[in-house]
Amino acid sequence: MAMIRIAIDCMGGDFGLPVTIPAALAFSDRHPGAELLLVGLADQIEARLAQAKASPAQRERLRIVPATEVVTMDDKVEVALRRKKDSSMRIAAELVRDGQADACVSAGNTGAWMAISRYVLKTLDGIDRPAIAKAIPNQSGGMTVILDLGANVDCTAEHLLQFAIMGSALVSSVGHRERPSVGLLNIGEEAIKGNDVVKQAAELLRRSALNFHGNVEGNDIFKGTVDVVVCDGFVGNIVLKSSEGLAKMLGVFIKEEFKRNLFTLLMGAIATPVLNRFRQRVDPRRYNGAALLGLRGVVIKSHGSADTYAFEWALQDAYDAVESGLLGRTAQTIAQITSVPAGGTEHEAGLEPSSHGDIA
Amino acid sequence: MAMIRIAIDCMGGDFGLPVTIPAALAFSDRHPGAELLLVGLADQIEARLAQAKASPAQRERLRIVPATEVVTMDDKVEVALRRKKDSSMRIAAELVRDGQADACVSAGNTGAWMAISRYVLKTLDGIDRPAIAKAIPNQSGGMTVILDLGANVDCTAEHLLQFAIMGSALVSSVGHRERPSVGLLNIGEEAIKGNDVVKQAAELLRRSALNFHGNVEGNDIFKGTVDVVVCDGFVGNIVLKSSEGLAKMLGVFIKEEFKRNLFTLLMGAIATPVLNRFRQRVDPRRYNGAALLGLRGVVIKSHGSADTYAFEWALQDAYDAVESGLLGRTAQTIAQITSVPAGGTEHEAGLEPSSHGDIA
Repeated sequence: MAMIRIAIDCMGGDFGLPVTIPAALAFSDRHPGAELLLVGLADQIEARLAQAKASPAQRERLRIVPATEVVTMDDKVEVALRRKKDSSMRIAAELVRDGQADACVSAGNTGAWMAISRYVLKTLDGIDRPAIAKAIPNQSGGMTVILDLGANVDCTAEHLLQFAIMGSALVSSVGHRERPSVGLLNIGEEAIKGNDVVKQAAELLRRSALNFHGNVEGNDIFKGTVDVVVCDGFVGNIVLKSSEGLAKMLGVFIKEEFKRNLFTLLMGAIATPVLNRFRQRVDPRRYNGAALLGLRGVVIKSHGSADTYAFEWALQDAYDAVESGLLGRTAQTIAQITSVPAGGTEHEAGLEPSSHGDIA
Repeated sequence: MAMIRIAIDCMGGDFGLPVTIPAALAFSDRHPGAELLLVGLADQIEARLAQAKASPAQRERLRIVPATEVVTMDDKVEVALRRKKDSSMRIAAELVRDGQADACVSAGNTGAWMAISRYVLKTLDGIDRPAIAKAIPNQSGGMTVILDLGANVDCTAEHLLQFAIMGSALVSSVGHRERPSVGLLNIGEEAIKGNDVVKQAAELLRRSALNFHGNVEGNDIFKGTVDVVVCDGFVGNIVLKSSEGLAKMLGVFIKEEFKRNLFTLLMGAIATPVLNRFRQRVDPRRYNGAALLGLRGVVIKSHGSADTYAFEWALQDAYDAVESGLLGRTAQTIAQITSVPAGGTEHEAGLEPSSHGDIA
């Protein structure tokens, strides 16, 4: 297989270079088939590489691509997009557009990364809006992909159908699962539940060639009822963040119980190996890396607060997406859905933005 | 203080009498100031009381109120409301309406309980739609009240304001907290984030006499950033159910880690007292009982799958709401908000349904 080339916005995130460079070096060591394009302020990257004592062998698969500007975590989208045309974020996306990289990764400002990657790379045919997707662990030992996680606040039924297509493509390529099942996030399993957009999306999904399971409820995300859970970005973002908050709270509660007195501290010390295994298993850093789907290129967003270990997982996501042929699979899934389904017309397949103009 | 009289729909929930009667007896024993009205099929209730060997002393504060029909968990709302006019659910609500009970509790079908209690009791002046609220534990050791949890799928900004009023009244009465802080659930703290309804609700809340904190994100629910989190019923229901699912999954994961081998089993046995304390602390049964707010009476919904212990907590919720004067406090809070705020008019205070007719 050819080298997999990943462009990294080395300046992005809460920490920037102190996280991205060590993560890049560690990732590179573990992946001889990867070439990393380190995008950012060249002298600072050089200094970090020197500080990290990168060996000549390591350097062989690293390339510095200079960028003179940096998008900050507080930059407004307009500023990032219109006024910082030589930002590390922008250059990273342009490397993918120009075929010099297969994927790009940033831990920077989500809104800016979304806008820039969309502006530079454009959406795939048949996709109106990109969506943010993430795989989270479920109770059945697998992973559930959920999208959209915040790129689109107001969605039409067609958008939700498109998210289902993109999520299915992600699971069938990266997750190596044929015909992934898709659930529509709702407040009840019955078809009559939910708002108008969700009801119409269910109808589109039912008529599509996707493996539509039907409505799912909040608890199904973690039960592993389906491979892909589809919702609008408002709901998805709130579900994701509330889950992060709950997991954190439960972690604090466990710690507090073991810290209650000398006796419980002792029990905690004894149980440490097991508790550590549990912590590792649910460590959110392991699930770092969300995919910006629907673009003409693999784009990964790392959590802004990612440390080196977490950022490596975001690089891994980029690598896996390229290796498993995510883009090709997405285009293929779109083609399947837009082709005439049993008893339907192309119009009915729901990829025509005008087909349901009555949806707000 | 006068007796607190609670009407119990003894037939509701996944289990009905085998749960509600023992719970009622246990609750009654712990609360000499409570009188319980046991509503349902009289002979069956009698049989259960005999089976539970209810003493004459216990019987003194229990009264059977016969109802000849039962709303099932699968009954459609229309059937429950229009065709079962002598259901235990309906009679329980009517006892409150007629002043024979101070509160009513059911573990039955949520949609039916909502519709029946609303039909029988009507909404308070200034409240268009009742909402479902629940207090859940947060990281700062307190409780966060979140509403709506599913009564209202599509909400206007005015509805969200009304939820904020009801939630504030709940916290200030039951939670004994003056001027509870209110957060509006959104996908970012910045005022520009979110959909139109949320943005307009923020504006209404900012101008109201409530203690509005501003936008909050999903993780703030469990952080305890504010006392009351307001959202529409679609989002609230999904957040609640996904949190239940996540908590369950983490419980399964911990168990799995301790069951890995003999060594970890031993560690688990040693740590049992601490793990049990943790489990008790996060036991969802302790947080059973959601309040149907905005009605002219205290109405509590227990989880359908509640066991005896959980159902007792729902009865406790009813008792606390009456004892703390929830209804009076709600009316008082509504009056405060509808009175002209600084620089505003009654119209601007946002309780006129027509004031923002442009919201879908």
